[in-house]
Formats: sequence, structure tokens, C-alpha cells
Amino acid sequence: MADQPNLLADLIEALRCLPGVGAKSAQRMAFHLLERDREGGVHLAQTLQAAMQRIGHCKSCRNFSEADACAICANASRDASLLCVVETPADLLAIEQATGYRGRYFVLMGRLSPLDGLGPHELGAELLTRRLAQGEVREMVIATNPTVEGEATAHWLGQLAHAANVRATRLAHGVPLGGELEYVDRGTLAHAFGSRHALDD
Amino acid sequence: MADQPNLLADLIEALRCLPGVGAKSAQRMAFHLLERDREGGVHLAQTLQAAMQRIGHCKSCRNFSEADACAICANASRDASLLCVVETPADLLAIEQATGYRGRYFVLMGRLSPLDGLGPHELGAELLTRRLAQGEVREMVIATNPTVEGEATAHWLGQLAHAANVRATRLAHGVPLGGELEYVDRGTLAHAFGSRHALDD
Repeated sequence: MADQPNLLADLIEALRCLPGVGAKSAQRMAFHLLERDREGGVHLAQTLQAAMQRIGHCKSCRNFSEADACAICANASRDASLLCVVETPADLLAIEQATGYRGRYFVLMGRLSPLDGLGPHELGAELLTRRLAQGEVREMVIATNPTVEGEATAHWLGQLAHAANVRATRLAHGVPLGGELEYVDRGTLAHAFGSRHALDD
Repeated sequence: MADQPNLLADLIEALRCLPGVGAKSAQRMAFHLLERDREGGVHLAQTLQAAMQRIGHCKSCRNFSEADACAICANASRDASLLCVVETPADLLAIEQATGYRGRYFVLMGRLSPLDGLGPHELGAELLTRRLAQGEVREMVIATNPTVEGEATAHWLGQLAHAANVRATRLAHGVPLGGELEYVDRGTLAHAFGSRHALDD
């Protein structure tokens, strides 16, 4: 587009770094901001700049944080004997929003994936091992995703917990609430069938 | 989310000013930039800041432009006797990309819409009238959208052209190429039927 002002073309191109935004959406976003919301655009630019520069990782749980300790780790009222291990900050948020969990977290920032160069070191194994060795944690809740890589990660985490003499638990897998058996995928149904438990459990 | 770092919550909120971006997409975008593309995020922030501050409107066609005259108006090789009037810069881009049109443009930045407070003044009527009065323009191509407001705007533009003794033309309306009659909406089909022309036209 030689006939477009260069800065506008740059803006459209820059917006494409956002996930799920293609050429057409980027163009729509650029025009929307320029025509109707310049103030919002300036605010977004400033917030984005500040966030990219100032948000780092919590030194104890690896979650995103501006300070050395994130709000959850700094909150003395949360139970330090419970440690929930999740793959990403988004998983942490989902658990915070859905459950009444009041323990601490550890964010792997990924999952074991040798093909992507993600091994125990990249997932903060040293930090996690140190934390378990301190003896404060009594139960590790493994909340990795139920995918192949998530399962491998869960297995590895279980070994870490075993080595540190910490009880390890996993989220329950099975038929989702509100689902109909007819439409549940085979793997989930087979797993739920295999993990059936007595009514008085 | 009291447990989220404030800057992250701010970023997620700020991203929601983009059209089509809700709470969940904004969260996904923020995490994506923080985890995988900080460089892209910083670049986006800087481009956005510069664009919001420096992109204004072309003094002769009202399209977005950094300079007083946009690239199309400043391009001496484009035919100044043809003036295509469009509602938005996105419409201009669509025509540039789809057609071989080599004339000039005039961007209304809206359409006649009294309820939204958009009258001739907001659409740059004075500027357009002056431009037509200069006598350089010989044909005005009215390319407003085929909506109720676009039709009203087209009618008004036709009157302006008539008053200035400029020939006015409109984009053809009818059955879209590649469409099947069975699935074309009634209004379009009725219009296309009513506007049928002899084969030797």
C-alpha cells in the first residue's frame, strides 16, 4: 500500500503482533482508534509500554508481578502449606476465579516439551525443589493441563514431591458438569469410567 | 482481581478499547505479549503512541495523513478530474485494493445521520463544495454504502454535484459476482431485477 501514510501502515502491521489479529482486524482496530478513540489509544500505548518494561516475575512463584513478590505470595493470610502448581498465569487466574483455593501457587510458565527446548530448568525446577525442601509445603496440588505434555509434566512433578516427602494430589478428571455422556469425547468417557468410585466415597 | 498485579489488570482493561476485544481476549493478548513477545509489545506501544499523536487528516480529502496532503492528493500522476466520495478511509482502501481507479478521493468520515449529530458540516460539506467550485473535478463518483443512511448521503452528494455542474455517477448495485440467486437477499434481488438492462448495453 504505497498510498497509505507510512505510520498508519506501521500501526496496522504492529497490531498484528496481537494473537488472533490478522490484516483485516488490525486495519479495523487502527481505524477505530484513529476515528473514535484516540484517548483510549494513547492510554493503551502508555499502559503497554509500562507493562512491557515493569512487569517481571515473582521471585518465589514465577507468576507475573511488578514487585519481587507477587500479591499472592506477599499475602500472609494465604496457606503456605498448600502449593498449587500450574502451567501458566492464565491457569492460575482460572483457578482463582473458579475455586475458593486459599493456598499458594507455583507457575511453571510452560510444560515439559523437549521439542520446544522446555526442560525442568526452563520450568524453574531448582526454585521449586528449594521451595519443597524448606519443609513448609505439605501438599502439592498438581494442576497441569490434561494433555500429553501436561501429563508428562505432572508425572515429573509427582517425582519431585515424592523426593521431598511432600504429599502430591491431582485435579480430578472425568465427565464435565453439565455435559451429556452422548457428547463427551471417548478419551474422557473411558477415563471417567475407569476412575469410577463407590457411592459412599 | 485483587490478587493480580495492578499494571497487568490495567493492561487487560486498556486492551479492551480495541474493537471486538472482550475480557477473555484482552487477557490472552496481555499474557501473549508478556510471555512471548515483549519486543512486539514495546514496538506496538511506540507505534501506537506516535500514530495517535501524529496522524491527522489530509487538508484536501480528509483521509488520514501525517502530512497536510495525503499520498494520494500529493501524487500528481492521479487524475484530478475524477473525485470518488467515500464514507470512511476503510472504504477508500477497499476501492484502492480492488479497482484500478486512478482519480482522487474525498472522505466524508461518516454519513448523514441526524440522530448521531452528523450533518453536512461534520462531513466536510464546505471543503467539498469549495473543491467542486474550483472547476477541476468533472466527474464525482459517489461510493457511499448501500444502506439507508448511505443512500440519503448519496442523494445529498448528488445535489451538491448538480449545483456545481459536475457529472455525478454511482457504483452499480445488483447481484454480487459469484453469488447464487437462490441465496441473494430479497432487497438486492428486487433492485437487480428492477435495474435490468438490455444485453447490448
